[in-house]
Amino acid sequence: MAQVARIGHASDQAPADDPGQPGTATEGLRIGPLPAVRTVRQEERKGARDMHDANGRPRLRIRPLALDTGRENVAVISRRSEALRPEVFRGFSRVELRCDARVLLATLLITDDDALVGPDEIGLAEPAMRRFAEPAGSLVSVTPAAQPPSLDAVRAKINGATLSGPEIAAIIDDVSHFRYSDMEIAAFLVGSASFMTSGELLALTDAMARAGTRLGWGSKPVVDKHCIGGIPGNRTSMIVVPIVAAHGLTIPKTSSRAITSPAGTADTMEVLARVDLGAEEMRAVVAECHGCLVWGGHVNLSPADDILISVERPLSLDTREQMVASIISKKLAAGSTHLLIDIPLGPSAKVTTTHEAMRLRKLFEFVGDHFGITVEVVTTDGRQPVGRGIGPVLEARDVMAVLANEPHAPADLREKSLQLAGHLLEYDAGLRGGAGVARARELLESGAALTQMQRIMRAQGPSDCAAVLGPLTADVLAPRDGVVTGIDCLLLNRLARTAGAPIDKGAGVDVMRRIGDRVEQGEPLYRIHAADKPELELAIATAARASGYAIT
Amino acid sequence: MAQVARIGHASDQAPADDPGQPGTATEGLRIGPLPAVRTVRQEERKGARDMHDANGRPRLRIRPLALDTGRENVAVISRRSEALRPEVFRGFSRVELRCDARVLLATLLITDDDALVGPDEIGLAEPAMRRFAEPAGSLVSVTPAAQPPSLDAVRAKINGATLSGPEIAAIIDDVSHFRYSDMEIAAFLVGSASFMTSGELLALTDAMARAGTRLGWGSKPVVDKHCIGGIPGNRTSMIVVPIVAAHGLTIPKTSSRAITSPAGTADTMEVLARVDLGAEEMRAVVAECHGCLVWGGHVNLSPADDILISVERPLSLDTREQMVASIISKKLAAGSTHLLIDIPLGPSAKVTTTHEAMRLRKLFEFVGDHFGITVEVVTTDGRQPVGRGIGPVLEARDVMAVLANEPHAPADLREKSLQLAGHLLEYDAGLRGGAGVARARELLESGAALTQMQRIMRAQGPSDCAAVLGPLTADVLAPRDGVVTGIDCLLLNRLARTAGAPIDKGAGVDVMRRIGDRVEQGEPLYRIHAADKPELELAIATAARASGYAIT
Repeated sequence: MAQVARIGHASDQAPADDPGQPGTATEGLRIGPLPAVRTVRQEERKGARDMHDANGRPRLRIRPLALDTGRENVAVISRRSEALRPEVFRGFSRVELRCDARVLLATLLITDDDALVGPDEIGLAEPAMRRFAEPAGSLVSVTPAAQPPSLDAVRAKINGATLSGPEIAAIIDDVSHFRYSDMEIAAFLVGSASFMTSGELLALTDAMARAGTRLGWGSKPVVDKHCIGGIPGNRTSMIVVPIVAAHGLTIPKTSSRAITSPAGTADTMEVLARVDLGAEEMRAVVAECHGCLVWGGHVNLSPADDILISVERPLSLDTREQMVASIISKKLAAGSTHLLIDIPLGPSAKVTTTHEAMRLRKLFEFVGDHFGITVEVVTTDGRQPVGRGIGPVLEARDVMAVLANEPHAPADLREKSLQLAGHLLEYDAGLRGGAGVARARELLESGAALTQMQRIMRAQGPSDCAAVLGPLTADVLAPRDGVVTGIDCLLLNRLARTAGAPIDKGAGVDVMRRIGDRVEQGEPLYRIHAADKPELELAIATAARASGYAIT
Repeated sequence: MAQVARIGHASDQAPADDPGQPGTATEGLRIGPLPAVRTVRQEERKGARDMHDANGRPRLRIRPLALDTGRENVAVISRRSEALRPEVFRGFSRVELRCDARVLLATLLITDDDALVGPDEIGLAEPAMRRFAEPAGSLVSVTPAAQPPSLDAVRAKINGATLSGPEIAAIIDDVSHFRYSDMEIAAFLVGSASFMTSGELLALTDAMARAGTRLGWGSKPVVDKHCIGGIPGNRTSMIVVPIVAAHGLTIPKTSSRAITSPAGTADTMEVLARVDLGAEEMRAVVAECHGCLVWGGHVNLSPADDILISVERPLSLDTREQMVASIISKKLAAGSTHLLIDIPLGPSAKVTTTHEAMRLRKLFEFVGDHFGITVEVVTTDGRQPVGRGIGPVLEARDVMAVLANEPHAPADLREKSLQLAGHLLEYDAGLRGGAGVARARELLESGAALTQMQRIMRAQGPSDCAAVLGPLTADVLAPRDGVVTGIDCLLLNRLARTAGAPIDKGAGVDVMRRIGDRVEQGEPLYRIHAADKPELELAIATAARASGYAIT
């Protein structure tokens, strides 16, 4: 029984089964209206106060670590650190760093290597260092991170509750300040995926729009277009923006990079110009050119949206409500007054039936109306790629061919862009009632749109990415004579991605045959471009299983 | 237009709009029954083959990093590494390491510090190093990790599908091999939280039981008990196991450590003896003593369960189906033939109504029947803590007081343990029909149970954790005269945890008044123990908001 005897050594206290006897070294600590709590202290902490926090815990000196940890904040401490009582912490647990009023939540790694982080130091990886914004050598205190209180609302949602506006605002505030771990974000998204009320949708949109930069523009209307995506090629924004800007309407376009697709507009524009502009640089370009084509990542519009998307995409979560909240929140933050939404419709598009498109349109209009944005929704042909190229360099080639009025430029990309630009131009009072498309055609054919695009490219500055068409190619051939009756957009996207796009800007798929075309056995249907052999071979293996073409 | 002209430099190939002309440097690569693909290669990779993989990519030398990253596998590469084309990778993306037939998925960090990881090296943090089990200096190839294919089934489940046995087995296989990220695990759990069919539940239980170690025992019955948890104190296993083992029945008990509670049985047993035994050591203890009280973590029973729980708990996901699959899978893997489940019932327990307890009982019996385990379910008083102590050292004190037949030992803990032990003893043919409790009492009162416990402690070996009762204390006092009519178990658990349990083994709450007790204003209701002032003050602040006692 020695072990038990050793345990009961709190010898100067009353035994627990004799509650009438208070401890001897009592302090008169009181709680509430009554003397509800007495404390017994047996220890005093020692050490220089400046090296200790208000609770007497040692502080640690910040040491920058040359570690890129992406979106995650990462801190590294020594297993021997006194400040941390490392037995409280485990690898990958979450910690809270404090330095005066500044607070940062980070994921913790523990090291035994003094050369990396000494016992009186805390290593901060680059993103954590940047976000905490305290100089190296500053003293911070570290405690186990409490979960953000807004997680209670996430749990309630998983259990079937409807969330209030303040609850949703608290969740989005925590998400946008990097206080949620990936798994907590996933719980929120999956828990909301099955059901969201109209009120929750409006609250989510509003909270997301308020979370980051909010742009304002001197003149109105401020127009924008957005495609819900899923169609390979389809790089209409890069033609619509110069046309609309050439007319003089304000069109400050921010775009995303691809996450699971082979190219986003930002990836393709980056072949031609710099896209990672900040909000002030973006303002300058729009002031000069009426429009821009920049990546949204540095403008910080609806940053919670970017964070949610970075979890949604790898999990392939794609609900209507989250899509609408994402798009409208970005446009609200961008200061848009008039928005054109393009919903491609086709068997392998995101939306496959007119009924579904109608429901989505109503949802966009409902949310747009609530926030005072004029939203117009058009459904377009989403049965096959728009343009020929899939992948940044190939798409940029198509875009410039259309703007330059080259004879072989893809007619479908040209016509679709003119229709969309025409819609937007009619937000100019002078062009209402159908004059928009004719004006768009005039601006394109005259070369005004091309000149405007060159002006925008110059204003944004040169891209520093080396964009060369992938030198390794493989042609995928028709297995029989016949007519192309269908093209699987999902498969062509996957192929271009497998070939290396968008990371290899020159990788992708060049489409040679479209629906309705007659083909002979052995004729190429499309060409795969890659920069490296492993990617090419993976893409060939994928195409060998299914070409994505129906020929009858 | 210079930028666009520069793009179109793949000059020795046919233009895409002239598909009839194949490239000049054609290789006769064929796919399927037709010559479906032709490849054009313009580059050959150079370099020593041994330093390159089958695709011509450079390999990297493994360098161990003294970094503890918990459950996660972490790899670190240089931003200048040729092998990795680091522009393909982002911090916290997932990579696949290959060395001959061995494969490891890891989370990637990127460094600019050559002293940490050089351009021809890959740093592996401790858990990754251990799981990959390749020596330092071995050559590995690194590619972006494909998502585990079983994630398609997770997505289907989120969208409302019912999963097949093989789909669930594939998910659990991937989870138990650390192929799922936290966010993917969260998606599976949250997606399954709202609905799971009986077939899915059986498949999940079966897959989890098969995923790790499976123990077998020479003699039958092999008995076990399990409490679904939630009640502070309640450390009955540490009394039941020595009683049942003293009788000679086999009771190989594995327990968990606390994740969100102030103590698990493993944490409390660790005050008295070593608990981190492997499967072979556990076998030896059971061979010698008929029973054991070890932590399950090193025995590797149903390891997927541990991984799922490590995501469930912080998210506070607690569905009936996941609970039943978790418990039964562990007992199947442990080779149990007879299982007693304790469901405490009370207003702040996990189960609050008899109706709910009945449904849970049926579910346990349904799954147990399917797998041929005799499952008996008892509901017990869960209105208040069982025993006095909450927290490892305080609970160990209570357990040893009961086993030593000390006069002030908590009677409730003693009687509950005797009832449970009595149920288990009746699985011995000679004790059927009500003789179990009398036999249990005899084994306890004679000192046989204490002797058996000391034998088990000796066989498991001494604990190396210093377990001393928390020297800082605060008494929480009755605010008025009256009778205790309710105790909030959740709040007392939270208080003990806030005070530092289970990390500080000596921290916790010592309960002095129970339901039905008459108290006078200013009398202590319970005493908080802590090792450090910050924890004590946090706990005091929590108790000041609500003591957890109803007095009327």
